[in-house]
Amino acid sequence: MSYAQLINEAVRQKGNPVLVGLDPRRESLPASFRSGSSVPAAFERFCNEIIDIAAPLVPAVKPQAAFFEQYGGEGMLVLQKIIRYARQKGLIVIFDGKRNDIGSTAEAYAAGILGEHSAWGADALTVSPYLGGDSIEPFVKTAAARNAGIYLLVKTSNPGGKMLQDLMTGGKPVYRHVAEYVEQLAAKTGGSVGAVVGATWAEQLAELRHVMPSAPLLVPGYGTQGGTAQDIAPAFHADGTGAVVNNSRGIIFAYQNEPFRSQFGEARWQDAVEASVKKMIGELKQVHFRQPAANSRSSCCE
Amino acid sequence: MSYAQLINEAVRQKGNPVLVGLDPRRESLPASFRSGSSVPAAFERFCNEIIDIAAPLVPAVKPQAAFFEQYGGEGMLVLQKIIRYARQKGLIVIFDGKRNDIGSTAEAYAAGILGEHSAWGADALTVSPYLGGDSIEPFVKTAAARNAGIYLLVKTSNPGGKMLQDLMTGGKPVYRHVAEYVEQLAAKTGGSVGAVVGATWAEQLAELRHVMPSAPLLVPGYGTQGGTAQDIAPAFHADGTGAVVNNSRGIIFAYQNEPFRSQFGEARWQDAVEASVKKMIGELKQVHFRQPAANSRSSCCE
Repeated sequence: MSYAQLINEAVRQKGNPVLVGLDPRRESLPASFRSGSSVPAAFERFCNEIIDIAAPLVPAVKPQAAFFEQYGGEGMLVLQKIIRYARQKGLIVIFDGKRNDIGSTAEAYAAGILGEHSAWGADALTVSPYLGGDSIEPFVKTAAARNAGIYLLVKTSNPGGKMLQDLMTGGKPVYRHVAEYVEQLAAKTGGSVGAVVGATWAEQLAELRHVMPSAPLLVPGYGTQGGTAQDIAPAFHADGTGAVVNNSRGIIFAYQNEPFRSQFGEARWQDAVEASVKKMIGELKQVHFRQPAANSRSSCCE
Repeated sequence: MSYAQLINEAVRQKGNPVLVGLDPRRESLPASFRSGSSVPAAFERFCNEIIDIAAPLVPAVKPQAAFFEQYGGEGMLVLQKIIRYARQKGLIVIFDGKRNDIGSTAEAYAAGILGEHSAWGADALTVSPYLGGDSIEPFVKTAAARNAGIYLLVKTSNPGGKMLQDLMTGGKPVYRHVAEYVEQLAAKTGGSVGAVVGATWAEQLAELRHVMPSAPLLVPGYGTQGGTAQDIAPAFHADGTGAVVNNSRGIIFAYQNEPFRSQFGEARWQDAVEASVKKMIGELKQVHFRQPAANSRSSCCE
């Protein structure tokens, strides 16, 4: 089974493509996490509660390494434990690190984060493409050997991404060159290689789905960053697979935003997490299964 | 004092631009480190001995995060301790992580690795540019506030770097666009922003030194990767400052290579480290100080 098959099967089983982003920020934690223990310890308790809520509902979570690395080795130890806990709960874990380096160093990242006996044991990793093919191959090789995957940055959700990604060269933008490279690798590996394409670029999302039919997509930028369900409709294959859609702050800190703030308040932040996940599942249902797959079990949240 | 002033002053004080890369690999460690303790604990003892040897000789060290991250949180705890130890010994520490992410996540990396009260407390960080300007600004802001620096990847030392970096757009390669952006930031901040330019591209090194007169350069690819002293001559300003030149395996595992293998053997691996550093200092002296600065004290290793 390739990574694409793994993630698509999880999307089918859960009946939705929601990817919960684990981006803990000290200043946004509910009050009960803001005193007593160290910040990394609070992150662990907070993320584990989110994982408990998310595991029955969604296919995958995406911890953002930066928020853990910010607290040094102690933060990274906690990230490691959170990844392990999420996988025990049956979730696919995408390590959002945007890592990359030249050949033999890329091998160390790949083996460490995705390898069979790796310390991190993630299912997938986000990878930055600026260093080119020989920096990406070690990740592909390691991923393909273990049903793991990588998501190469193609068209990122931030406005400034245009600076390099949209430069025109050889009649097409740089991101298109990266996308064509991704498709080659995805086709060759049966889907070990995917792409990050922001929900904030609806037009390019359609173009890039077309250019990369074999690649699983990771679509950030939904919700807080402005991407809507209609914007991301083109990301999916006809059977509703092919993409996972990330929402981080809009879910994990849902208690800070209406209507959840009024409905649950900070004391019931877990209910806000659950309600916001179900709300997002409902929103995506409008666009997700254009042709429901025969074995779809999309029944969790009507 | 800006980061450029800090690193240039260190280069002047030590009289050479050698940057010792801390890339520990289990399989290359001398036998005395290969048994007994955990791999990260062995890395700590090994790197600290190298720091002891390097501190009186060179201006800076560059730990490669991948080799520590490979061992999970335990590896990252060790990396944190090594950074602290190197700074105590008076070395400038460049965290080689090639990190980057969108806005608020980039802030977390920047604060965590370079910020005033950061867990890591590095002096500089390598940063990948693919996500564009708004992903880079948080690093620049944090660095400029604390005499810290970033090195943006411009033209990397690996052959595959050409895939994206050499695409022609608007009459010039992508790396040139990045270089011009670096120069803007470097000029504006007085040198908080530098660039990575591989020793393996002698011609582009001259071009890029010209395009980025304000930017400190980090030049990898010397030695093992094939870059020679003549290749990197154009990286320096006339007074011998402006660039640091990295060598990792060629120094830290010098005992594996001739002439050091015959001369010292594995048992005297520390002598091989010292001899290889002094050899590199000697090689660079031919090209480094084209016009020796008045206050140069380049007297360590004749």
